[in-house]
Amino acid sequence: MRALYLEGGQIHLRTDYPTPEPPPGEALVRVLKAGICNTDLELLRGYLDFRGVPGHEFVGRVVRCDDDPAWVGRRVVGEINAACGTCETCRAGRPTHCPNRTTLGIAGRDGAFADYLTLPIVNLHAVPDEVSDDEAVFVEPLAAALEITDQAHIRPTDRVIVIGDGKLGLLCAQVLALTGCDLLVIGRHQEKLDLLARRGIPVALEGEGPFGQADVVVEVTGHPGGFQTARKLVRPRGRLVLKSTYHGLLETNMTMVVVDEVTLQGSRCGPFAPALRLLRQRLVDVAPLIQARYPLTEGRAAFEWAATKGTLKVLIEVEGTETEEETR
Amino acid sequence: MRALYLEGGQIHLRTDYPTPEPPPGEALVRVLKAGICNTDLELLRGYLDFRGVPGHEFVGRVVRCDDDPAWVGRRVVGEINAACGTCETCRAGRPTHCPNRTTLGIAGRDGAFADYLTLPIVNLHAVPDEVSDDEAVFVEPLAAALEITDQAHIRPTDRVIVIGDGKLGLLCAQVLALTGCDLLVIGRHQEKLDLLARRGIPVALEGEGPFGQADVVVEVTGHPGGFQTARKLVRPRGRLVLKSTYHGLLETNMTMVVVDEVTLQGSRCGPFAPALRLLRQRLVDVAPLIQARYPLTEGRAAFEWAATKGTLKVLIEVEGTETEEETR
Repeated sequence: MRALYLEGGQIHLRTDYPTPEPPPGEALVRVLKAGICNTDLELLRGYLDFRGVPGHEFVGRVVRCDDDPAWVGRRVVGEINAACGTCETCRAGRPTHCPNRTTLGIAGRDGAFADYLTLPIVNLHAVPDEVSDDEAVFVEPLAAALEITDQAHIRPTDRVIVIGDGKLGLLCAQVLALTGCDLLVIGRHQEKLDLLARRGIPVALEGEGPFGQADVVVEVTGHPGGFQTARKLVRPRGRLVLKSTYHGLLETNMTMVVVDEVTLQGSRCGPFAPALRLLRQRLVDVAPLIQARYPLTEGRAAFEWAATKGTLKVLIEVEGTETEEETR
Repeated sequence: MRALYLEGGQIHLRTDYPTPEPPPGEALVRVLKAGICNTDLELLRGYLDFRGVPGHEFVGRVVRCDDDPAWVGRRVVGEINAACGTCETCRAGRPTHCPNRTTLGIAGRDGAFADYLTLPIVNLHAVPDEVSDDEAVFVEPLAAALEITDQAHIRPTDRVIVIGDGKLGLLCAQVLALTGCDLLVIGRHQEKLDLLARRGIPVALEGEGPFGQADVVVEVTGHPGGFQTARKLVRPRGRLVLKSTYHGLLETNMTMVVVDEVTLQGSRCGPFAPALRLLRQRLVDVAPLIQARYPLTEGRAAFEWAATKGTLKVLIEVEGTETEEETR
């Protein structure tokens, strides 16, 4: 099969990559479309020393599922953490934190920038007809945004600031707006902020402050510099939600976190089912986040475009791109 | 001025009612429209022994405000609890529970089914241009729905059941759907449930069970019978949110609440600002809830219609009804 292969900070197309053989309990999924995430760009920069096929935001169709043939033919999205199911963490009900886990296209498991992938059946979620392929690609990052409201109580009366207007930031902002909270999104790109402003969400450019302090601040800039800005915006005894994962270290003074009794809350993957419900009920709009589409064979160009400063979602279209001449 | 006056279980129009004189710190508000709430119908049945002008869901325009003239001319909605501001409860930041409070059209203070009302300036919220008069009338009950998500953490991964498809039930359902939770609304009226189903919210008629158990159950039937049904649907250690207020007693066995360690959560008035934000962002749809409009002079007929089984919101239109022949 065809696959985009990452090694040594480079990505290249392989046309002879072995089609994966699903082990017991797993399904073989034909990838329809996949999205390039900031984490993929960080992998290219050396994050997690990943080598293999990246890609963890996808929609596909199950083509083989020996242990539960009812899945065959279904359009699916998939949770990306494949847990062992037997360790203490798994038995305590926290499989996404299983120390033995592999993660689709991120750690120990080939991902979605290929014709096929395999995932445990328990990771699959059928996509309702009302949710398009384009939308389904966003289920994974939208679930990550929902992890914020799953982890902690965001009150409609809270003042909440989101810092970062990237792909994930725009999703976090839309999810937080649903609480009715007093929301402000601070970013660096007027055209991205405008996508939120059109939905009635208050936005501001980074230099436009002062912004006052907030009960909850969500740091989703994707770079270490966002932390300091975010930190200053949290009120004493407030909560700072950390969504950015990046290759590199953060150097910071933690004393003021102690003095102000701020809660720092790391936040990663979230629940898929609520993400599908919000999409089906049209409560979140992901279509405007798509900026470009590339066939799998032009994966390298897709990555270059995705890495351009200010780019939103770049989709890689897999199925149907074997024979057609696709244009963006 | 004109006012609908309630006494002895009857409501009648008075045309010679004294226009209220705003005391210091209060504003005089010309009522534009007001909605009939279930609580108003309960007042007619003897709830709280209220005597005076009912009505607490309204939109109006400030016509006098000596202590802060900037309010004059503004279109407003108003929080209904007028607190003393000096007692221990007020100083602890819980003015809606002030033991000395009066409540607009419910206790100790004339309400909105009249040409004018007065409210403390601190209770007023300016209505943004994007929110119509019809929508603004729903700010008070929508705020009551938001009290649920303000009081307790509803997770996107929670299973939540709302029992009751009345006016408040439909608003509670819409607010809860915004969390992405696994929601089911159980009611008695297919046509009301259809308003939610059209938004992608799962619904069922009361007899269609079994429904399984839920993490959170919201009882908003408006009658004592709803409690037993709701109680059975809460999982052990789950939460039962009580929204119904009615004239009459509940007879129930509390032992199973203890054995199952269920949390019962009384829930009343909620925050206005988030309600205005949700309406402005068009995240909640209230227009389909309006079933009839009456001029103030036909208030009695309006109440009769509102009391008819299965009726949703009946609006009383005040301003502009002096001279015009209004038809519904």
